[in-house]
Amino acid sequence: MSLERVHEAIESRFASHLEAIREFLRTPSISADGTGIAETAEQVKGFIEEVGGKGEVVPTAGHPIVHGELMLGKPKTLLIYGMYDVMPVEGEEWIVPPFGAEIVDFPPHGRCLVNRGVHNTKGPLRGFFNAVSTIRDVAELPVNLKFVIEGEEEQSSRNLPAFIKSNKERLRGDAVYFPFFGLDNRGQPVVHLGAKGMIHLELECRGGEWGGPRTRGIHSSHGAWIASPPWRLVQALSSLVGADETILVEGFYEDVQGPSPEDEELLPRLAAVFDETKILDETDALRFKFEGLHGEELLKKYMFSPLININGYITGHTGEGSKTVIGHQAMAKMDVRLVPKMTVEGAAQKIKGHLARHGFEDVQARVLGGYPWSRTSVHEPVVQALLETYRHHGYEAEIWPYIGGSAPFFLFHDELGMPFIPGGLCHGGSPHSPNEYAVVDQIELFEKSVATFLHKFAEM
Amino acid sequence: MSLERVHEAIESRFASHLEAIREFLRTPSISADGTGIAETAEQVKGFIEEVGGKGEVVPTAGHPIVHGELMLGKPKTLLIYGMYDVMPVEGEEWIVPPFGAEIVDFPPHGRCLVNRGVHNTKGPLRGFFNAVSTIRDVAELPVNLKFVIEGEEEQSSRNLPAFIKSNKERLRGDAVYFPFFGLDNRGQPVVHLGAKGMIHLELECRGGEWGGPRTRGIHSSHGAWIASPPWRLVQALSSLVGADETILVEGFYEDVQGPSPEDEELLPRLAAVFDETKILDETDALRFKFEGLHGEELLKKYMFSPLININGYITGHTGEGSKTVIGHQAMAKMDVRLVPKMTVEGAAQKIKGHLARHGFEDVQARVLGGYPWSRTSVHEPVVQALLETYRHHGYEAEIWPYIGGSAPFFLFHDELGMPFIPGGLCHGGSPHSPNEYAVVDQIELFEKSVATFLHKFAEM
Repeated sequence: MSLERVHEAIESRFASHLEAIREFLRTPSISADGTGIAETAEQVKGFIEEVGGKGEVVPTAGHPIVHGELMLGKPKTLLIYGMYDVMPVEGEEWIVPPFGAEIVDFPPHGRCLVNRGVHNTKGPLRGFFNAVSTIRDVAELPVNLKFVIEGEEEQSSRNLPAFIKSNKERLRGDAVYFPFFGLDNRGQPVVHLGAKGMIHLELECRGGEWGGPRTRGIHSSHGAWIASPPWRLVQALSSLVGADETILVEGFYEDVQGPSPEDEELLPRLAAVFDETKILDETDALRFKFEGLHGEELLKKYMFSPLININGYITGHTGEGSKTVIGHQAMAKMDVRLVPKMTVEGAAQKIKGHLARHGFEDVQARVLGGYPWSRTSVHEPVVQALLETYRHHGYEAEIWPYIGGSAPFFLFHDELGMPFIPGGLCHGGSPHSPNEYAVVDQIELFEKSVATFLHKFAEM
Repeated sequence: MSLERVHEAIESRFASHLEAIREFLRTPSISADGTGIAETAEQVKGFIEEVGGKGEVVPTAGHPIVHGELMLGKPKTLLIYGMYDVMPVEGEEWIVPPFGAEIVDFPPHGRCLVNRGVHNTKGPLRGFFNAVSTIRDVAELPVNLKFVIEGEEEQSSRNLPAFIKSNKERLRGDAVYFPFFGLDNRGQPVVHLGAKGMIHLELECRGGEWGGPRTRGIHSSHGAWIASPPWRLVQALSSLVGADETILVEGFYEDVQGPSPEDEELLPRLAAVFDETKILDETDALRFKFEGLHGEELLKKYMFSPLININGYITGHTGEGSKTVIGHQAMAKMDVRLVPKMTVEGAAQKIKGHLARHGFEDVQARVLGGYPWSRTSVHEPVVQALLETYRHHGYEAEIWPYIGGSAPFFLFHDELGMPFIPGGLCHGGSPHSPNEYAVVDQIELFEKSVATFLHKFAEM
């Protein structure tokens, strides 16, 4: 494969590639309520077929998984993981319509495509297919490709495990690649070797045997002698996490392993280039939550701390004016982040056990989904191919042992025994937030980096 | 005045009286958002004019107050207090439209008028005017009447104090009467001599100097190193009230006086007839929040305990599915109930001081309104007139030193120096809740009891 010819072709075709990305982004594919999911799955199947592969929309108990193969008799096979679902946008304020795929000047990032999913991760998914399509037109694809593109990543990939477990042979390959915009907001490529695990949890308190109104809100004057489900949920929540956000669940840190020898090797190198202000910019915060922690110690908190987050809570009257009511139900939506070597089952049981031991047996803790942490060694050929790709384009990557976020990469490690790596040269940001964006001019570089990566991986 | 002739006339006119009540109820007059407020104020002014008085819709900084006079040169003057505003209905499930004024079979109460405000308190207000109109047609009204009908009771009567303070002379009379459905769900008249005070409070936590995202929600993976406003609000809330709902605010119980000698006299009599199951029915609860407390001790908790209630809280994503976000703001709407001899200013300062001392200086505690507790002695002629009225109709009232709820009756006691009493013979229920109702057949009895009461009061 002549890499140069492929890169030139990507350049000359980029205007139409960008339009293809914009078109893909304009179909909402909202995981939470299913909007546009079926249509988007069909589009992804179409992408596989456009590059000459066989695609299939596989139904699941939830949103379908798009599976596909492009087998060319090459020695190496790369499994492409991706997702076509996105987060909801209700209640968010955007500078442009969240599904308009508009290109706007977006300081300080320059000209950006702003749309839900442009970064996480429909943008890179479509860009990947643009690159492969160009390779197939002007050169030879140096590896076989397989595809598993799910539609429930934003809901803990609920039906992916069953699919992978029952299709091990069909999915088998040498490594898994997740097309991803891997440049941060300084234009620095960042490689994450691992991801935290996660549990989606819902806590609910309703009036019942323990007391409280059971089926309707009551006048709050009765709070003098009738128990309050909203207060009870507050007490249950505050029993889980202390004032400094330390987790108070008994034994929660028991299985926390901390950095491995490989991590300890990588951490000082990362700390040397780690920029705290970048994180504060990204999170629009003035300070970290740990007084006086910096560099390696701060990074360790980020990567090796388990977490219990509140994603939302609601009870009673929250609109304008006053309503002196005590609601009969109060609910909190939460996520739990797991680090090595915690398990989903273990963490969930510890939370449930804690609630029961602290007298909150009646507070329902519902596990809506979850999966364990995962980790690829920096020494894997697929990782080295990515690092070489970045060098080819003039970048030296920052290597993070773990990202703070979660993704179901354990499936590839644990079930398929394949190393997993996300990457690609483009900057995007604000996933799960208003004005999710990607830098337009770098999308071309991303597509080139995909071609380079396929080339390097074939040569490893 | 021939009471018998008046009662007969109320009976023969009741069909049209009921229609007048239904018509009044069909206009929403929602305090929180102002829906129908102006129109309803005009209707109330019309009622005053229909019975021969002078009515005036007086603008305030919020919803108008309807003031009026019907001066007939009688020796005694009764000031009628009332409210024409009601609670919101959003998010509630009703068996009939909440402003349809439908009459339905409503077990176990029988035929009921179901509508927001039918009990609290547009039903009794319109019923009062029906009674006065009948008296004026067939007999002689034995007292002068003055009126102060506010439109912001459900928002802590924010503008009533200024009105009363600047109209003391115009409002002056011998006593204040609040038309009210005073029969409970056993058909027993209940007289409340006092009311708790209250503060409407809003607690809000936003990212800021202390940490946390300031202007938008962030991906919850950052919870590992960026502080969470939703967790901070939970911690601030849980610092206020303990697991058993005991108030932890320093000095909060300092000004709590407990029962007075008159209360101590009334309490055993009340305890002798007090029916716990009635309260549990009303609140749809299986138990009280105090293990093993009954009778007088339970009643004391209800009447003489200050309270901090959560009316609602909200942050982040609370809809279907998952959204792994940390919101930049979290908010709780609360009410605080005050007992003798707490003050609004004192209680609010204690809460604010507590938050500051516990490291929650950044949690905003906004006082949206409030007023103190109040109390009328059982020996006041207006109270005795009401008790005699109940006896006239064959009822012996249960006398409660205080109701757990709040109303701005202190204004009449403290500013005008007038005793205050609510009452009337009809059963209604579920104020501030879905399916607020009143027993249709008893509304006629209510109107008769109003006539009896005016007669008795004139004779005292």
